Amino acid sequence: MLNFEFYNPAKIIFGKRTEESVGERSANFGKNILLHYGGGSIKKNGIYDKVIKSLKEQNLNIFELGDVKPNPRLSLVRKGIQMCKNNNIDFILAVGGGSVIDSAKAIAIGAKYDGDVWDFFVKGTIAKEAIPLGVVLTIPAAGSESSTSTVITNDEDNNYKRGMQSLEYIPKFAMLNPEFCYTLPKYQIACGCCDILAHLVERYFTEVENVELSDRLIEGAVKTIINNGTIAYNDNTNYDAWAEIMWTGTIAHNNLLNMGRIGDWASHQIAHELSGIYDLTHGAALSIVIPAWMKYVYKHNIDKFYQFATRVFHIIDEDKEKAVLKMIDKLEIWYKQLELPTRLADANIEPVRFEEMAERAFLHKEVIGNFKKLYKEDLVKIYNLCV
Amino acid sequence: MLNFEFYNPAKIIFGKRTEESVGERSANFGKNILLHYGGGSIKKNGIYDKVIKSLKEQNLNIFELGDVKPNPRLSLVRKGIQMCKNNNIDFILAVGGGSVIDSAKAIAIGAKYDGDVWDFFVKGTIAKEAIPLGVVLTIPAAGSESSTSTVITNDEDNNYKRGMQSLEYIPKFAMLNPEFCYTLPKYQIACGCCDILAHLVERYFTEVENVELSDRLIEGAVKTIINNGTIAYNDNTNYDAWAEIMWTGTIAHNNLLNMGRIGDWASHQIAHELSGIYDLTHGAALSIVIPAWMKYVYKHNIDKFYQFATRVFHIIDEDKEKAVLKMIDKLEIWYKQLELPTRLADANIEPVRFEEMAERAFLHKEVIGNFKKLYKEDLVKIYNLCV
Repeated sequence: MLNFEFYNPAKIIFGKRTEESVGERSANFGKNILLHYGGGSIKKNGIYDKVIKSLKEQNLNIFELGDVKPNPRLSLVRKGIQMCKNNNIDFILAVGGGSVIDSAKAIAIGAKYDGDVWDFFVKGTIAKEAIPLGVVLTIPAAGSESSTSTVITNDEDNNYKRGMQSLEYIPKFAMLNPEFCYTLPKYQIACGCCDILAHLVERYFTEVENVELSDRLIEGAVKTIINNGTIAYNDNTNYDAWAEIMWTGTIAHNNLLNMGRIGDWASHQIAHELSGIYDLTHGAALSIVIPAWMKYVYKHNIDKFYQFATRVFHIIDEDKEKAVLKMIDKLEIWYKQLELPTRLADANIEPVRFEEMAERAFLHKEVIGNFKKLYKEDLVKIYNLCV
Repeated sequence: MLNFEFYNPAKIIFGKRTEESVGERSANFGKNILLHYGGGSIKKNGIYDKVIKSLKEQNLNIFELGDVKPNPRLSLVRKGIQMCKNNNIDFILAVGGGSVIDSAKAIAIGAKYDGDVWDFFVKGTIAKEAIPLGVVLTIPAAGSESSTSTVITNDEDNNYKRGMQSLEYIPKFAMLNPEFCYTLPKYQIACGCCDILAHLVERYFTEVENVELSDRLIEGAVKTIINNGTIAYNDNTNYDAWAEIMWTGTIAHNNLLNMGRIGDWASHQIAHELSGIYDLTHGAALSIVIPAWMKYVYKHNIDKFYQFATRVFHIIDEDKEKAVLKMIDKLEIWYKQLELPTRLADANIEPVRFEEMAERAFLHKEVIGNFKKLYKEDLVKIYNLCV
C-alpha cells in the first residue's frame, strides 16, 4: 500500500424526501443562490418545482442558469461566473447529473478568481477559494457529487476537453433521492451504470501490491452495480435497486477506493476520443473500450485479472487465461443486457479513424495508463479490438 | 436501505514517516498545544521523541498530559480541561490508541463548555464547540481516530462507563503509520483485531433489508481483518499486514459501513459488563461474547447468517444451520489462533455472576440489541453460552 491522504468533507444526505430540506441547508450559506441545471428534464419530472418551493420557503434570492449540456461548455461557465460576480452569489445549487455539477464546480472557482477560469484547466493554476456548492443529484453516474474533479469542454477553442482536481469545490452537501432516478430514459440508466462500473474497474487494475482491503471493497461495489444495474434497467421504479446504484456511484468516485493505490484510467482516455469524434455518450464508449482494453492488457498481470474473475464473477478454471476470457465474455453479456454497444459496429461507427484518435489522445501526453503503460501503437491496436 | 446522512471530515494521513508533518499540521490551529498520551509506551518506542521534535520545529508551546489509562477516566479529563482553560490551548494532539483519543475528545468539548463535562455523557447535553483535535494513532482497534464517539469511565462515581456522540470532536487529522504497530504486545494485537472485527460484525447483522453495497463492503473488510490479523500476530513487523489492519480499523468505525442500516451492538454491551466486573480487556471479552451471541440469535434470521457464512467463510451446505454453526466454529478457531479466550474458563472466570451482569446491563435500558431485541433473561442465557 502506498502512502496516502484521504479527505472528503461532502455531507451525503440520502433517501426519500431529503430534498425538502434543500432550502434550509442552502440558506446556511447566504441569501443569493445560483440555481444551476440542465436541459429542462427537471421541469418535466417535478424536481425543479420541489427545489424552488424549498428555496422560496427560506426567502432566498434565486438566480437561475439552466441549459447545461452533456460535456459542459466553457461558454456557459463564463456566463455563470459573470452572474455570480454581478449578483453577489453566496451559494451555488447544482440540480442534475455530472455535467451540471462539473459546470457548477468550474463556476464556483471561477467566480473567486481574477484571471481566466480556463487557467485552472490548462495552466495548472491552483484554486484557492470557491463559492460553496450544493447538489441535488438526479443522475447517478459521474460521481461528481462528492469528487474532487471537474471536466469542461472548451467550445471556444477546438472543443478541447480538460479536467482539473481541487478540494475547494467539493460540495458542502449532496442530496441523493433514489426516486429521482425513476424517470431516467433506459439508455441513460445503462450508460450511468456502465460509467460507475468503469470508475471501479479503473481503480481496481493497479500495479501497486498489498491493497487487499481496497481490492475487496471494489469487488463488492462491482458486484453491487452489476446486480442492481440489471434490476433497475428492467424495473425503473425499483427503489432498492436505485438506492444501491446511487450509493455505489458516490462511493465509486469519492476517492476512498483509490487510497494507497494508483488507478489505470487508460480506458477513460481511449473512450474520450471515441466520444469526441463520434459524439458517442461516455457510458456507451466505455462499454466498447473496456472489454477491448482488458483483452489487450490482461497478460500484463494475469493474476490480478484472475483474482477479479474468480472473486467478482466466481469463475474457477485451472487455466487462468481461460477464466479471464470468460470473465470478459460475462462482462460483455452484462453490457448487452443493458443494450449497450460492445463493438464499434453496434454504435454504427466505421473502423477508419484509429490513427487520428490515437494521435489526439497523445496530444499533450507521452504515455497513457498506469496498470500497463500504453503508447500510440497500443491505442491503435486497442481500437482494432473494438471492431 | 434507510434514509441516512454521512459526513466525516477527518483527514486521514496514512503511511510511513507521515508523522514528520505533525508539527506543521498542528501549527495551523495555533501556538498552544496540549499533548495527550497514555502510560509511556510512546516514550520507549521513540514515537514521543518524533512527535516532540516535529512540534518543536514549529516553535509550539507544548503542554503535556500523559497517563491516560485503558477505560479513560473522568478525573483525568477534568484535569485536561483545566489545563486547556489555564493555558489557552488552541489544539489538542492525542498520541495513542482509542483510550487516549476518547479522553482527548472529552477534554476538547469540556474545555469549551461552562458546565460539567459529565453532562454530555448523562444529561444528553449537545456539544456545540470543541478545541480542534489531531491524532497520531499507535494502536489500531477502537476506530476513534475518525469516529463520532467517545466512551469515558466515571472514576468519581461507581465507575459508570458512558458514551456520547458528536461531530464536533471528529479529529481534524489522524496520522496512521503502520510501522508504529511493530512494538505492540501480542495480546494487544489480538485484542485490537478482535475489536475491529466486532465493529464490522455489529454493523453487519441488521434487520434492515436491501443493503447490498454495505453488506458486501463489510464482508470485504471482515475477510481483510481475518487474513491480516493472523499475519501480523505471527509476524509483527509485517508492514503490509499492519497497513491493512490500520486502514480496516478506521473504515470499520467511521460510520461509512453503517449507512442506511442499523447495527446491533448487543455484543458490545454484553462484553462491557464482563470487562467491568472482571477487568477483562475489551477485545478478549468480545472473543467470548460474539460466538455466544451468534449461537443464541442466528435462528432469528438464518438467511443473513448463512449469507455471512458463504460469502465470508466460503462455507456451502444445503443445511443452512449446519453452515452457520461451521462459520461460528471457524470464527472461534481464528480467535484461538490469536490466543484469545472463547470461553469464560479460558479467561479464568467462574460462571457465577450472570444475573448480576445482566442486571447491570439493563440499568438504564429496557432492551439491548437491534438485530434481535434482547431482555434480561436472554442475556443470562447468552452468558451461559459463554461457559
